[in-house]
Amino acid sequence: MTVLVVGSVALDSVETPFGKVEDALGGAGTFFSASASHFTPVRLVGVVGSDYPVDRLQVLAERGVDLAGVERAEGESFRWRGRYRHDLNTAETLETRLGVFSHFRPKIPAHFRQTPYVFLANIDPRLQLDVLQQVEQPKLVAADTMNFWIESRRSDLLQLLKHVNILLLNDAEARQLTEHANLVRAARWIMERGPQHVVIKKGEHGAFMFTPDSIFFAPAYPLEDVFDPTGAGDAFAGGFIGYLAKTGKLDDAHLRRAVVYGSTMGSFAVERFSIDRLLEIERRDIARRLDAFGRLVAFEAELPEPV
Amino acid sequence: MTVLVVGSVALDSVETPFGKVEDALGGAGTFFSASASHFTPVRLVGVVGSDYPVDRLQVLAERGVDLAGVERAEGESFRWRGRYRHDLNTAETLETRLGVFSHFRPKIPAHFRQTPYVFLANIDPRLQLDVLQQVEQPKLVAADTMNFWIESRRSDLLQLLKHVNILLLNDAEARQLTEHANLVRAARWIMERGPQHVVIKKGEHGAFMFTPDSIFFAPAYPLEDVFDPTGAGDAFAGGFIGYLAKTGKLDDAHLRRAVVYGSTMGSFAVERFSIDRLLEIERRDIARRLDAFGRLVAFEAELPEPV
Repeated sequence: MTVLVVGSVALDSVETPFGKVEDALGGAGTFFSASASHFTPVRLVGVVGSDYPVDRLQVLAERGVDLAGVERAEGESFRWRGRYRHDLNTAETLETRLGVFSHFRPKIPAHFRQTPYVFLANIDPRLQLDVLQQVEQPKLVAADTMNFWIESRRSDLLQLLKHVNILLLNDAEARQLTEHANLVRAARWIMERGPQHVVIKKGEHGAFMFTPDSIFFAPAYPLEDVFDPTGAGDAFAGGFIGYLAKTGKLDDAHLRRAVVYGSTMGSFAVERFSIDRLLEIERRDIARRLDAFGRLVAFEAELPEPV
Repeated sequence: MTVLVVGSVALDSVETPFGKVEDALGGAGTFFSASASHFTPVRLVGVVGSDYPVDRLQVLAERGVDLAGVERAEGESFRWRGRYRHDLNTAETLETRLGVFSHFRPKIPAHFRQTPYVFLANIDPRLQLDVLQQVEQPKLVAADTMNFWIESRRSDLLQLLKHVNILLLNDAEARQLTEHANLVRAARWIMERGPQHVVIKKGEHGAFMFTPDSIFFAPAYPLEDVFDPTGAGDAFAGGFIGYLAKTGKLDDAHLRRAVVYGSTMGSFAVERFSIDRLLEIERRDIARRLDAFGRLVAFEAELPEPV
């Protein structure tokens, strides 16, 4: 089944210990689409400025991403400039220019409105709610958010949660939103406010998925060369939702596998700048890494005899 | 098979958001012994001051820990006072009084010298080397260390590595020792200097075990109530080495299971102050948590059809 994603389409300038890139394809909508398109057709809604190199988005169209919802507005594109130090764990934002994104008002094209799977990437919760007004009874709604909205749009965010099946957010955001340091408690707090499932992403430390009666954990894949962590969380979301949409199933086994596909896609995203690696990989690469994830955590339980 | 552990036997005063305790049984040797004794007989070598409530160590003796190597010296016992804030991730050391521990010179009793499994808890690498002079061809030597020794006793530590089969250390220590931010590279650096296996503990983020041709990861168990993280790493080591000693096997399957037993024992240690929970649990509690670990990471790989 098809996935609709509403999120930023940006230009990233990134410096890591291994190199730098200027005005590369970036933004949550872009990373999500590049990732999810390995599993299922994607419909992207976003906005770019009059300076955006839209021809470069054709690589997404070629992968089955319908770009009819990418509006072109008069003005500058959303640009993010960041740097990662040696440990690659935290991005240092050097500059954020929202440009046309600051006036973004998502308009869902008519032929997108019946998309069964909806991912609301990190944008103003008021806009996320507005998108839900425009779509027709989706089978599944997933959403991401960030510290800025948790602080400035708390009541809208709580309103949104009532309409969201799966909330994806990182550990710091979960703690900030719920005021629980303990992630098990934080997840329960969220599930009491709407979502049936909560995915808490911990970057290089992996991801938890909480459901009312189980917890699943997938590590981040221990890569020897992490090149650029930008977009890993959105690539995760793309693999996670893309796989769920592909199968149309939401039972525990499929949700668990979806988390591992999310981790898999996140692990590819960080191997090169921008969406480069996500465009390059093929089905067999994904299969191989999924296998490697299996080996990474596999053990056979067997209790020893008493002492 | 029996395990010999050489390490601190201390008195801990700890404050967490959930309570406080004064002069509780603590120290790496103590936590390790309480944990490993669930799997195999343990021989403990350490030193306590003339003020130490040695009768309180009887709980260990009752669990099969031979205390013949716990020397009583004139002077004050090793005392640590620490506090954990709301997030429980980092201990704030309020006071460290080494007391008799600062002159500790491990003497391995004659009937301990042929112990097949040796765990050198975090002490001066010169003393760790000295212990290895006193034991007779152990089957397996594992060691821990800390930032202080990495900085002040680097060459001794590198000398020690040549004689160690398994090094256990935390992620910050691995990065400090190897000057690699990337843990895969850090582990390889260590394995090139002696150990066949490296276990990198990441606290609440789980633990990696690296071998020359595989990587295994076990998460920390997501507990709703973490009461006091003190000793979790040593309880981990106790479960890990204790299980290996119990089975006498060192193949990949046993090593993986040992890591999960390590995580299991670490997860119990943090549920109460001091070694209280480690003394309380029974075989069925361990079996139940091992099962829970299995469910936490279990997924079935299955690649979806192409889009």
